[in-house]
Amino acid sequence: MTGAHPDLSVFTVDGIGEIVPGDDLPLIIAERVNGVARPGDIIAVTSKIVSKAEGRLVHANDRDDAIRSETVRVVATREHRGRVTRIVENKLGLVMAAAGVDASNTADGTVLLLPLHPDESAASIRMAMEATVGGMVGVIITDTAGRPWREGQTDIVIGASGVRLLDDLRGQRDAAGKLLEVTAPAVGDEIAAAADLVKGKSSGVPVAVVRGLARFVDAEAHGGRELVRGASDDMFSLGTAEARQQGWDEGYRAGLAARDS
Amino acid sequence: MTGAHPDLSVFTVDGIGEIVPGDDLPLIIAERVNGVARPGDIIAVTSKIVSKAEGRLVHANDRDDAIRSETVRVVATREHRGRVTRIVENKLGLVMAAAGVDASNTADGTVLLLPLHPDESAASIRMAMEATVGGMVGVIITDTAGRPWREGQTDIVIGASGVRLLDDLRGQRDAAGKLLEVTAPAVGDEIAAAADLVKGKSSGVPVAVVRGLARFVDAEAHGGRELVRGASDDMFSLGTAEARQQGWDEGYRAGLAARDS
Repeated sequence: MTGAHPDLSVFTVDGIGEIVPGDDLPLIIAERVNGVARPGDIIAVTSKIVSKAEGRLVHANDRDDAIRSETVRVVATREHRGRVTRIVENKLGLVMAAAGVDASNTADGTVLLLPLHPDESAASIRMAMEATVGGMVGVIITDTAGRPWREGQTDIVIGASGVRLLDDLRGQRDAAGKLLEVTAPAVGDEIAAAADLVKGKSSGVPVAVVRGLARFVDAEAHGGRELVRGASDDMFSLGTAEARQQGWDEGYRAGLAARDS
Repeated sequence: MTGAHPDLSVFTVDGIGEIVPGDDLPLIIAERVNGVARPGDIIAVTSKIVSKAEGRLVHANDRDDAIRSETVRVVATREHRGRVTRIVENKLGLVMAAAGVDASNTADGTVLLLPLHPDESAASIRMAMEATVGGMVGVIITDTAGRPWREGQTDIVIGASGVRLLDDLRGQRDAAGKLLEVTAPAVGDEIAAAADLVKGKSSGVPVAVVRGLARFVDAEAHGGRELVRGASDDMFSLGTAEARQQGWDEGYRAGLAARDS
Protein backbone atom coordinates (compact mmCIF):
# COMPACT_ATOMS: atom_id res chain seq x y z
CA MET A 1 0.00 0.00 0.00
CA THR A 2 1.48 3.33 -1.06
CA GLY A 3 0.40 6.03 1.34
CA ALA A 4 3.15 8.42 0.24
CA HIS A 5 2.90 8.19 -3.53
CA PRO A 6 -0.50 8.03 -5.19
CA ASP A 7 -0.85 5.53 -8.01
CA LEU A 8 -2.76 8.15 -9.98
CA SER A 9 -2.45 11.94 -9.71
CA VAL A 10 -4.34 14.65 -11.57
CA PHE A 11 -3.13 18.26 -11.65
CA THR A 12 -5.12 21.22 -12.90
CA VAL A 13 -3.36 23.65 -15.20
CA ASP A 14 -4.28 27.26 -14.46
CA GLY A 15 -3.68 30.44 -16.39
CA ILE A 16 -4.68 29.23 -19.84
CA GLY A 17 -6.91 32.29 -20.14
CA GLU A 18 -9.54 32.97 -22.76
CA ILE A 19 -8.72 31.35 -26.09
CA VAL A 20 -9.57 33.23 -29.31
CA PRO A 21 -9.50 32.16 -32.97
CA GLY A 22 -5.97 31.88 -34.29
CA ASP A 23 -4.34 31.34 -30.90
CA ASP A 24 -1.42 28.90 -31.03
CA LEU A 25 -3.04 26.49 -28.56
CA PRO A 26 -0.24 23.89 -28.53
CA LEU A 27 2.27 26.61 -27.63
CA ILE A 28 -0.02 28.14 -24.98
CA ILE A 29 -0.68 24.76 -23.33
CA ALA A 30 2.98 23.72 -23.51
CA GLU A 31 4.00 26.96 -21.79
CA ARG A 32 1.42 26.63 -19.02
CA VAL A 33 2.11 22.94 -18.44
CA ASN A 34 5.87 23.45 -18.39
CA GLY A 35 7.10 22.57 -14.90
CA VAL A 36 4.06 20.40 -14.16
CA ALA A 37 4.09 17.72 -16.85
CA ARG A 38 6.69 14.97 -17.12
CA PRO A 39 7.36 12.23 -19.65
CA GLY A 40 4.69 9.53 -19.36
CA ASP A 41 1.97 12.00 -18.37
CA ILE A 42 -1.34 12.28 -20.21
CA ILE A 43 -2.67 15.78 -20.87
CA ALA A 44 -6.46 16.14 -20.96
CA VAL A 45 -7.68 19.16 -22.94
CA THR A 46 -11.31 20.30 -23.00
CA SER A 47 -12.52 20.37 -26.62
CA LYS A 48 -14.02 23.80 -26.03
CA ILE A 49 -10.68 25.62 -26.14
CA VAL A 50 -9.59 23.63 -29.20
CA SER A 51 -12.78 24.71 -30.97
CA LYS A 52 -12.24 28.32 -29.91
CA ALA A 53 -8.66 28.33 -31.24
CA GLU A 54 -10.00 26.87 -34.50
CA GLY A 55 -12.65 29.58 -34.69
CA ARG A 56 -15.49 27.01 -34.63
CA LEU A 57 -17.86 29.68 -33.26
CA VAL A 58 -21.16 30.32 -35.05
CA HIS A 59 -24.05 32.70 -34.38
CA ALA A 60 -26.61 31.23 -31.98
CA ASN A 61 -29.46 31.94 -34.39
CA ASP A 62 -27.68 29.61 -36.83
CA ARG A 63 -27.59 26.91 -34.12
CA ASP A 64 -30.12 24.59 -35.75
CA ASP A 65 -28.37 24.89 -39.11
CA ALA A 66 -25.07 24.17 -37.37
CA ILE A 67 -26.49 21.08 -35.69
CA ARG A 68 -27.94 19.87 -39.01
CA SER A 69 -24.61 20.40 -40.76
CA GLU A 70 -22.81 18.43 -38.03
CA THR A 71 -25.35 15.60 -38.09
CA VAL A 72 -24.67 12.37 -39.94
CA ARG A 73 -27.64 10.46 -38.52
CA VAL A 74 -30.50 11.32 -36.16
CA VAL A 75 -30.60 8.73 -33.37
CA ALA A 76 -33.43 10.03 -31.18
CA THR A 77 -35.54 13.12 -30.65
CA ARG A 78 -37.61 14.04 -27.64
CA GLU A 79 -39.53 17.13 -26.55
CA HIS A 80 -39.65 17.72 -22.82
CA ARG A 81 -41.16 20.88 -21.29
CA GLY A 82 -40.97 22.64 -24.68
CA ARG A 83 -37.26 21.79 -24.96
CA VAL A 84 -36.38 19.56 -27.93
CA THR A 85 -33.47 17.18 -27.36
CA ARG A 86 -31.87 15.73 -30.49
CA ILE A 87 -29.46 12.83 -30.01
CA VAL A 88 -27.48 12.49 -33.23
CA GLU A 89 -24.40 10.82 -34.63
CA ASN A 90 -21.95 13.51 -35.72
CA LYS A 91 -19.14 13.52 -38.28
CA LEU A 92 -16.71 12.11 -35.68
CA GLY A 93 -18.95 9.06 -35.19
CA LEU A 94 -19.90 10.35 -31.73
CA VAL A 95 -23.51 10.03 -30.56
CA MET A 96 -24.25 13.21 -28.62
CA ALA A 97 -27.06 15.62 -27.81
CA ALA A 98 -27.20 18.47 -30.36
CA ALA A 99 -24.28 16.83 -32.25
CA GLY A 100 -21.99 18.25 -29.57
CA VAL A 101 -22.84 21.84 -30.52
CA ASP A 102 -22.36 23.73 -27.26
CA ALA A 103 -23.84 27.01 -26.01
CA SER A 104 -22.30 27.06 -22.52
CA ASN A 105 -19.20 29.10 -21.70
CA THR A 106 -19.36 30.90 -25.04
CA ALA A 107 -19.90 34.60 -25.77
CA ASP A 108 -23.56 35.66 -25.84
CA GLY A 109 -25.27 34.96 -29.14
CA THR A 110 -22.72 32.33 -30.14
CA VAL A 111 -22.46 28.53 -30.04
CA LEU A 112 -19.40 26.36 -30.42
CA LEU A 113 -18.94 23.42 -32.79
CA LEU A 114 -16.65 20.50 -31.98
CA PRO A 115 -13.10 20.60 -33.38
CA LEU A 116 -12.90 19.51 -37.03
CA HIS A 117 -10.08 16.98 -36.55
CA PRO A 118 -9.57 16.38 -32.81
CA ASP A 119 -6.98 13.64 -33.37
CA GLU A 120 -4.85 16.09 -35.36
CA SER A 121 -5.39 18.79 -32.74
CA ALA A 122 -4.25 16.30 -30.08
CA ALA A 123 -1.18 15.44 -32.18
CA SER A 124 -0.16 19.10 -32.48
CA ILE A 125 -0.52 19.64 -28.74
CA ARG A 126 1.41 16.43 -28.09
CA MET A 127 4.28 17.56 -30.33
CA ALA A 128 4.56 20.87 -28.49
CA MET A 129 4.29 19.10 -25.12
CA GLU A 130 6.99 16.54 -25.93
CA ALA A 131 9.37 19.31 -27.01
CA THR A 132 8.72 20.98 -23.66
CA VAL A 133 8.93 17.99 -21.29
CA GLY A 134 11.64 16.22 -23.33
CA GLY A 135 9.89 12.87 -23.54
CA MET A 136 6.79 11.02 -24.66
CA VAL A 137 3.39 12.15 -23.39
CA GLY A 138 -0.17 11.40 -24.40
CA VAL A 139 -2.91 13.92 -25.20
CA ILE A 140 -6.67 13.46 -25.11
CA ILE A 141 -9.29 15.96 -26.26
CA THR A 142 -12.38 15.60 -24.08
CA ASP A 143 -16.02 16.59 -24.27
CA THR A 144 -19.05 16.04 -22.04
CA ALA A 145 -21.75 13.56 -22.99
CA GLY A 146 -24.90 12.10 -21.50
CA ARG A 147 -25.55 8.37 -21.64
CA PRO A 148 -28.57 6.08 -21.64
CA TRP A 149 -29.78 4.55 -18.36
CA ARG A 150 -27.70 6.84 -16.13
CA GLU A 151 -28.39 10.33 -14.83
CA GLY A 152 -25.90 13.11 -15.45
CA GLN A 153 -23.02 13.39 -17.86
CA THR A 154 -19.41 12.18 -17.92
CA ASP A 155 -16.46 13.37 -19.97
CA ILE A 156 -15.34 11.17 -22.86
CA VAL A 157 -12.49 11.20 -25.37
CA ILE A 158 -13.30 12.71 -28.78
CA GLY A 159 -9.73 12.87 -30.02
CA ALA A 160 -6.36 11.57 -28.89
CA SER A 161 -2.69 11.21 -29.77
CA GLY A 162 -0.17 8.87 -28.16
CA VAL A 163 -2.64 7.21 -25.77
CA ARG A 164 -4.04 3.68 -25.94
CA LEU A 165 -7.74 4.33 -25.23
CA LEU A 166 -8.97 0.73 -25.01
CA ASP A 167 -7.18 -1.73 -22.69
CA ASP A 168 -8.26 -4.81 -24.59
CA LEU A 169 -7.85 -7.79 -22.24
CA ARG A 170 -9.98 -10.14 -24.32
CA GLY A 171 -8.23 -13.48 -24.66
CA GLN A 172 -6.16 -12.97 -21.51
CA ARG A 173 -6.85 -14.73 -18.22
CA ASP A 174 -8.02 -13.25 -14.91
CA ALA A 175 -6.46 -13.86 -11.47
CA ALA A 176 -8.54 -17.04 -11.18
CA GLY A 177 -7.20 -18.23 -14.54
CA LYS A 178 -10.48 -17.75 -16.37
CA LEU A 179 -10.50 -16.53 -19.97
CA LEU A 180 -11.66 -12.91 -20.23
CA GLU A 181 -14.22 -12.88 -23.06
CA VAL A 182 -15.41 -9.27 -23.12
CA THR A 183 -13.18 -7.34 -20.69
CA ALA A 184 -11.83 -4.22 -22.39
CA PRO A 185 -11.71 -1.19 -20.07
CA ALA A 186 -12.30 2.08 -21.92
CA VAL A 187 -9.33 3.67 -20.15
CA GLY A 188 -9.48 6.71 -22.43
CA ASP A 189 -12.94 7.63 -21.20
CA GLU A 190 -11.93 6.80 -17.61
CA ILE A 191 -8.97 9.19 -17.92
CA ALA A 192 -11.31 11.86 -19.34
CA ALA A 193 -13.62 11.29 -16.35
CA ALA A 194 -10.76 11.56 -13.83
CA ALA A 195 -9.60 14.81 -15.47
CA ASP A 196 -13.14 16.22 -15.40
CA LEU A 197 -13.26 15.75 -11.62
CA VAL A 198 -10.59 18.45 -11.24
CA LYS A 199 -11.35 20.56 -14.32
CA GLY A 200 -14.97 20.85 -13.38
CA LYS A 201 -17.78 22.48 -15.29
CA SER A 202 -18.20 25.80 -13.55
CA SER A 203 -14.54 26.37 -12.64
CA GLY A 204 -13.75 26.47 -16.33
CA VAL A 205 -10.21 25.07 -16.02
CA PRO A 206 -9.68 23.56 -19.49
CA VAL A 207 -6.52 21.46 -19.04
CA ALA A 208 -5.41 18.78 -16.60
CA VAL A 209 -2.29 16.61 -16.33
CA VAL A 210 -2.84 12.95 -15.46
CA ARG A 211 0.13 11.06 -13.98
CA GLY A 212 0.55 7.34 -13.29
CA LEU A 213 -0.72 5.84 -16.54
CA ALA A 214 2.47 5.82 -18.63
CA ARG A 215 1.64 2.21 -19.54
CA PHE A 216 -1.08 3.60 -21.84
CA VAL A 217 1.17 6.20 -23.48
CA ASP A 218 1.90 4.69 -26.90
CA ALA A 219 3.11 6.51 -30.02
CA GLU A 220 1.42 3.85 -32.17
CA ALA A 221 -2.00 4.26 -30.57
CA HIS A 222 -5.08 4.92 -32.71
CA GLY A 223 -7.04 8.13 -32.16
CA GLY A 224 -10.50 8.77 -30.77
CA ARG A 225 -12.16 6.30 -33.16
CA GLU A 226 -10.80 3.46 -31.01
CA LEU A 227 -13.72 4.04 -28.60
CA VAL A 228 -16.42 4.66 -31.22
CA ARG A 229 -18.81 1.74 -31.74
CA GLY A 230 -20.45 1.85 -35.15
CA ALA A 231 -24.25 1.81 -35.41
CA SER A 232 -24.16 -1.60 -37.13
CA ASP A 233 -22.50 -3.11 -34.03
CA ASP A 234 -24.73 -1.30 -31.56
CA MET A 235 -27.89 -2.69 -29.92
CA PHE A 236 -29.09 0.87 -29.30
CA SER A 237 -28.40 2.49 -32.64
CA LEU A 238 -31.85 4.09 -32.69
CA GLY A 239 -34.09 5.59 -30.00
CA THR A 240 -36.80 3.28 -28.68
CA ALA A 241 -39.67 5.49 -29.93
CA GLU A 242 -38.02 5.92 -33.36
CA ALA A 243 -37.40 2.19 -33.76
CA ARG A 244 -40.93 1.32 -32.64
CA GLN A 245 -42.39 3.82 -35.16
CA GLN A 246 -40.17 2.46 -37.93
CA GLY A 247 -41.34 -1.06 -37.12
CA TRP A 248 -44.96 0.01 -36.91
CA ASP A 249 -44.88 1.56 -40.40
CA GLU A 250 -43.33 -1.59 -41.88
CA GLY A 251 -45.75 -3.84 -40.01
CA TYR A 252 -48.76 -1.79 -41.10
CA ARG A 253 -47.76 -2.08 -44.77
CA ALA A 254 -47.28 -5.82 -44.30
CA GLY A 255 -50.71 -6.05 -42.67
CA LEU A 256 -52.33 -4.20 -45.55
CA ALA A 257 -50.49 -6.38 -48.05
CA ALA A 258 -51.80 -9.48 -46.29
CA ARG A 259 -55.26 -8.16 -47.19
CA ASP A 260 -54.61 -8.55 -50.92
CA SER A 261 -53.26 -12.08 -50.60
CA MET B 1 -0.85 25.64 -11.00
CA THR B 2 -0.03 23.03 -8.37
CA GLY B 3 2.92 20.95 -9.43
CA ALA B 4 3.64 19.74 -5.91
CA HIS B 5 0.18 18.77 -4.72
CA PRO B 6 -2.16 17.01 -7.11
CA ASP B 7 -5.77 18.19 -7.08
CA LEU B 8 -6.85 14.55 -7.22
CA SER B 9 -4.95 11.50 -5.93
CA VAL B 10 -5.91 7.84 -6.08
CA PHE B 11 -4.17 5.22 -3.92
CA THR B 12 -4.51 1.48 -4.30
CA VAL B 13 -5.07 -0.55 -1.15
CA ASP B 14 -3.14 -3.81 -1.19
CA GLY B 15 -3.33 -6.87 1.02
CA ILE B 16 -7.10 -7.25 1.12
CA GLY B 17 -6.62 -10.89 0.19
CA GLU B 18 -9.27 -13.38 -0.92
CA ILE B 19 -12.66 -12.62 0.64
CA VAL B 20 -14.89 -15.54 1.68
CA PRO B 21 -18.52 -15.68 2.84
CA GLY B 22 -18.94 -14.35 6.35
CA ASP B 23 -15.80 -12.17 6.32
CA ASP B 24 -16.24 -8.89 8.18
CA LEU B 25 -15.48 -6.79 5.10
CA PRO B 26 -15.86 -3.37 6.78
CA LEU B 27 -13.32 -4.38 9.43
CA ILE B 28 -10.91 -5.87 6.86
CA ILE B 29 -11.05 -2.77 4.65
CA ALA B 30 -10.75 -0.38 7.61
CA GLU B 31 -7.63 -2.23 8.80
CA ARG B 32 -5.99 -2.23 5.37
CA VAL B 33 -6.85 1.40 4.65
CA ASN B 34 -5.67 2.56 8.07
CA GLY B 35 -2.70 4.87 7.54
CA VAL B 36 -3.70 5.66 3.97
CA ALA B 37 -7.17 7.19 4.24
CA ARG B 38 -7.93 10.56 5.80
CA PRO B 39 -11.14 12.45 6.57
CA GLY B 40 -12.67 13.72 3.32
CA ASP B 41 -11.43 10.76 1.28
CA ILE B 42 -13.72 8.59 -0.82
CA ILE B 43 -13.17 4.81 -0.71
CA ALA B 44 -14.01 2.89 -3.88
CA VAL B 45 -14.76 -0.79 -3.29
CA THR B 46 -15.23 -3.31 -6.11
CA SER B 47 -18.66 -4.94 -5.75
CA LYS B 48 -17.07 -8.35 -6.29
CA ILE B 49 -15.59 -8.52 -2.77
CA VAL B 50 -18.83 -7.26 -1.24
CA SER B 51 -20.71 -10.06 -3.02
CA LYS B 52 -18.13 -12.63 -1.89
CA ALA B 53 -18.42 -11.52 1.75
CA GLU B 54 -22.21 -11.79 1.41
CA GLY B 55 -21.88 -15.29 -0.04
CA ARG B 56 -23.60 -14.26 -3.30
CA LEU B 57 -21.87 -17.14 -5.10
CA VAL B 58 -23.95 -19.61 -7.11
CA HIS B 59 -23.07 -22.65 -9.22
CA ALA B 60 -22.21 -21.75 -12.81
CA ASN B 61 -24.71 -24.26 -14.16
CA ASP B 62 -27.40 -22.24 -12.36
CA ARG B 63 -26.13 -19.08 -14.12
CA ASP B 64 -29.14 -18.65 -16.40
CA ASP B 65 -31.52 -19.16 -13.49
CA ALA B 66 -29.52 -16.64 -11.48
CA ILE B 67 -29.69 -14.07 -14.29
CA ARG B 68 -33.44 -14.66 -14.63
CA SER B 69 -33.95 -14.22 -10.90
CA GLU B 70 -31.96 -10.96 -10.94
CA THR B 71 -33.81 -9.62 -13.99
CA VAL B 72 -36.62 -7.10 -13.63
CA ARG B 73 -36.89 -6.31 -17.35
CA VAL B 74 -35.15 -7.54 -20.50
CA VAL B 75 -33.82 -4.53 -22.42
CA ALA B 76 -32.05 -6.16 -25.35
CA THR B 77 -30.79 -9.55 -26.51
CA ARG B 78 -28.27 -10.32 -29.21
CA GLU B 79 -26.51 -13.44 -30.39
CA HIS B 80 -23.03 -12.91 -31.76
CA ARG B 81 -20.74 -15.79 -32.75
CA GLY B 82 -22.92 -18.20 -30.77
CA ARG B 83 -22.60 -16.03 -27.66
CA VAL B 84 -25.91 -14.62 -26.38
CA THR B 85 -25.71 -11.18 -24.74
CA ARG B 86 -28.67 -10.21 -22.58
CA ILE B 87 -28.89 -6.57 -21.50
CA VAL B 88 -31.37 -6.40 -18.63
CA GLU B 89 -32.54 -4.09 -15.89
CA ASN B 90 -31.78 -5.69 -12.53
CA LYS B 91 -33.33 -5.28 -9.09
CA LEU B 92 -31.07 -2.28 -8.38
CA GLY B 93 -32.46 -0.46 -11.44
CA LEU B 94 -29.14 -0.93 -13.21
CA VAL B 95 -29.11 -1.83 -16.92
CA MET B 96 -26.26 -4.30 -17.37
CA ALA B 97 -25.22 -7.30 -19.41
CA ALA B 98 -26.29 -10.56 -17.71
CA ALA B 99 -27.92 -8.50 -14.93
CA GLY B 100 -24.43 -7.96 -13.53
CA VAL B 101 -23.98 -11.68 -12.84
CA ASP B 102 -20.21 -12.16 -13.13
CA ALA B 103 -18.10 -15.21 -13.92
CA SER B 104 -14.64 -13.58 -13.91
CA ASN B 105 -12.30 -13.79 -10.91
CA THR B 106 -14.52 -16.38 -9.22
CA ALA B 107 -13.74 -19.98 -8.33
CA ASP B 108 -14.23 -22.45 -11.19
CA GLY B 109 -17.84 -23.55 -11.65
CA THR B 110 -19.20 -20.53 -9.80
CA VAL B 111 -20.65 -17.13 -10.72
CA LEU B 112 -21.15 -14.09 -8.53
CA LEU B 113 -24.34 -12.07 -8.09
CA LEU B 114 -24.30 -8.35 -7.27
CA PRO B 115 -24.61 -7.38 -3.59
CA LEU B 116 -28.22 -7.43 -2.34
CA HIS B 117 -28.17 -3.94 -0.80
CA PRO B 118 -25.03 -2.10 -1.96
CA ASP B 119 -26.04 1.17 -0.30
CA GLU B 120 -26.23 -0.62 3.05
CA SER B 121 -22.94 -2.39 2.38
CA ALA B 122 -21.38 1.01 1.63
CA ALA B 123 -22.83 2.42 4.85
CA SER B 124 -21.31 -0.39 6.95
CA ILE B 125 -17.90 0.10 5.35
CA ARG B 126 -18.20 3.86 5.85
CA MET B 127 -18.99 3.43 9.54
CA ALA B 128 -15.93 1.24 10.08
CA MET B 129 -13.79 3.65 8.02
CA GLU B 130 -14.89 6.73 9.93
CA ALA B 131 -14.12 5.04 13.26
CA THR B 132 -10.63 4.32 11.89
CA VAL B 133 -9.77 7.67 10.27
CA GLY B 134 -11.61 9.72 12.88
CA GLY B 135 -13.64 11.81 10.47
CA MET B 136 -16.15 11.76 7.63
CA VAL B 137 -15.41 9.74 4.51
CA GLY B 138 -17.47 8.59 1.57
CA VAL B 139 -17.78 5.05 0.23
CA ILE B 140 -18.81 3.89 -3.25
CA ILE B 141 -19.40 0.30 -4.36
CA THR B 142 -18.41 -0.04 -8.01
CA ASP B 143 -19.03 -2.46 -10.84
CA THR B 144 -18.06 -2.62 -14.50
CA ALA B 145 -20.59 -1.90 -17.24
CA GLY B 146 -20.67 -1.52 -20.99
CA ARG B 147 -22.51 1.37 -22.60
CA PRO B 148 -24.20 2.08 -25.93
CA TRP B 149 -22.26 3.86 -28.70
CA ARG B 150 -18.85 3.41 -27.06
CA GLU B 151 -16.41 0.51 -27.14
CA GLY B 152 -15.18 -1.02 -23.90
CA GLN B 153 -16.48 -0.77 -20.38
CA THR B 154 -16.16 1.77 -17.56
CA ASP B 155 -16.73 1.39 -13.83
CA ILE B 156 -19.92 2.88 -12.39
CA VAL B 157 -21.41 3.32 -8.91
CA ILE B 158 -23.95 0.67 -7.87
CA GLY B 159 -24.11 1.67 -4.22
CA ALA B 160 -22.85 4.53 -2.08
CA SER B 161 -22.86 6.13 1.36
CA GLY B 162 -21.82 9.66 2.27
CA VAL B 163 -21.04 10.76 -1.30
CA ARG B 164 -23.01 13.15 -3.52
CA LEU B 165 -23.02 11.25 -6.84
CA LEU B 166 -24.64 13.89 -9.06
CA ASP B 167 -23.20 17.43 -9.11
CA ASP B 168 -26.41 19.07 -10.23
CA LEU B 169 -25.50 22.49 -11.65
CA ARG B 170 -28.84 23.01 -13.40
CA GLY B 171 -30.10 26.52 -12.74
CA GLN B 172 -26.61 27.87 -11.99
CA ARG B 173 -24.64 30.07 -14.37
CA ASP B 174 -21.42 29.27 -16.25
CA ALA B 175 -18.27 31.43 -16.38
CA ALA B 176 -19.86 33.38 -19.25
CA GLY B 177 -22.96 34.00 -17.13
CA LYS B 178 -25.18 31.66 -19.14
CA LEU B 179 -27.81 29.55 -17.42
CA LEU B 180 -26.80 25.87 -17.27
CA GLU B 181 -29.89 23.96 -18.41
CA VAL B 182 -28.74 20.33 -18.37
CA THR B 183 -25.27 20.33 -16.79
CA ALA B 184 -25.10 17.71 -14.03
CA PRO B 185 -21.78 15.85 -13.92
CA ALA B 186 -22.16 12.25 -12.77
CA VAL B 187 -19.24 12.65 -10.38
CA GLY B 188 -19.99 9.30 -8.73
CA ASP B 189 -19.36 7.42 -11.97
CA GLU B 190 -16.33 9.63 -12.70
CA ILE B 191 -14.88 8.71 -9.29
CA ALA B 192 -15.57 5.01 -10.00
CA ALA B 193 -13.75 5.42 -13.34
CA ALA B 194 -10.75 7.14 -11.73
CA ALA B 195 -10.54 4.35 -9.13
CA ASP B 196 -10.74 1.68 -11.84
CA LEU B 197 -7.66 3.15 -13.52
CA VAL B 198 -5.55 2.07 -10.54
CA LYS B 199 -7.54 -0.99 -9.40
CA GLY B 200 -7.49 -2.47 -12.85
CA LYS B 201 -9.15 -5.61 -14.09
CA SER B 202 -6.29 -8.10 -14.15
CA SER B 203 -4.40 -6.80 -11.11
CA GLY B 204 -7.40 -7.65 -8.98
CA VAL B 205 -6.85 -4.88 -6.42
CA PRO B 206 -10.40 -4.38 -5.08
CA VAL B 207 -10.12 -1.12 -3.09
CA ALA B 208 -8.84 2.37 -3.86
CA VAL B 209 -8.74 5.61 -1.88
CA VAL B 210 -9.65 8.80 -3.78
CA ARG B 211 -8.43 12.10 -2.30
CA GLY B 212 -9.29 15.66 -3.30
CA LEU B 213 -13.08 15.45 -3.59
CA ALA B 214 -14.12 16.21 -0.01
CA ARG B 215 -16.65 18.68 -1.45
CA PHE B 216 -18.74 15.68 -2.54
CA VAL B 217 -18.53 13.91 0.84
CA ASP B 218 -21.97 14.50 2.34
CA ALA B 219 -23.64 12.53 5.13
CA GLU B 220 -27.05 13.46 3.71
CA ALA B 221 -26.31 12.13 0.21
CA HIS B 222 -28.66 9.65 -1.45
CA GLY B 223 -27.31 6.24 -2.43
CA GLY B 224 -26.67 4.65 -5.81
CA ARG B 225 -30.19 5.37 -7.08
CA GLU B 226 -29.16 9.01 -7.57
CA LEU B 227 -27.53 7.99 -10.87
CA VAL B 228 -30.22 5.57 -12.04
CA ARG B 229 -32.49 6.90 -14.80
CA GLY B 230 -35.80 5.11 -14.88
CA ALA B 231 -36.98 3.47 -18.12
CA SER B 232 -39.88 5.93 -18.41
CA ASP B 233 -37.40 8.84 -18.59
CA ASP B 234 -35.04 7.09 -20.96
CA MET B 235 -34.95 7.44 -24.76
CA PHE B 236 -33.19 4.07 -25.00
CA SER B 237 -35.27 1.96 -22.62
CA LEU B 238 -35.48 -0.86 -25.16
CA GLY B 239 -33.04 -2.29 -27.70
CA THR B 240 -33.50 -1.06 -31.26
CA ALA B 241 -34.35 -4.52 -32.64
CA GLU B 242 -36.77 -5.21 -29.77
CA ALA B 243 -38.55 -1.86 -30.18
CA ARG B 244 -38.77 -2.29 -33.96
CA GLN B 245 -40.26 -5.80 -33.54
CA GLN B 246 -42.74 -4.52 -30.96
CA GLY B 247 -43.79 -1.75 -33.35
CA TRP B 248 -44.00 -4.14 -36.28
CA ASP B 249 -46.40 -6.48 -34.44
CA GLU B 250 -48.64 -3.57 -33.46
CA GLY B 251 -48.50 -2.10 -36.99
CA TYR B 252 -49.28 -5.47 -38.59
CA ARG B 253 -52.38 -5.91 -36.43
CA ALA B 254 -53.44 -2.37 -37.33
CA GLY B 255 -52.91 -3.11 -41.02
CA LEU B 256 -55.01 -6.28 -40.80
CA ALA B 257 -57.71 -4.38 -38.89
CA ALA B 258 -57.78 -1.75 -41.67
CA ARG B 259 -58.87 -4.59 -43.95
CA ASP B 260 -62.19 -4.90 -42.14
CA SER B 261 -62.91 -1.17 -42.22
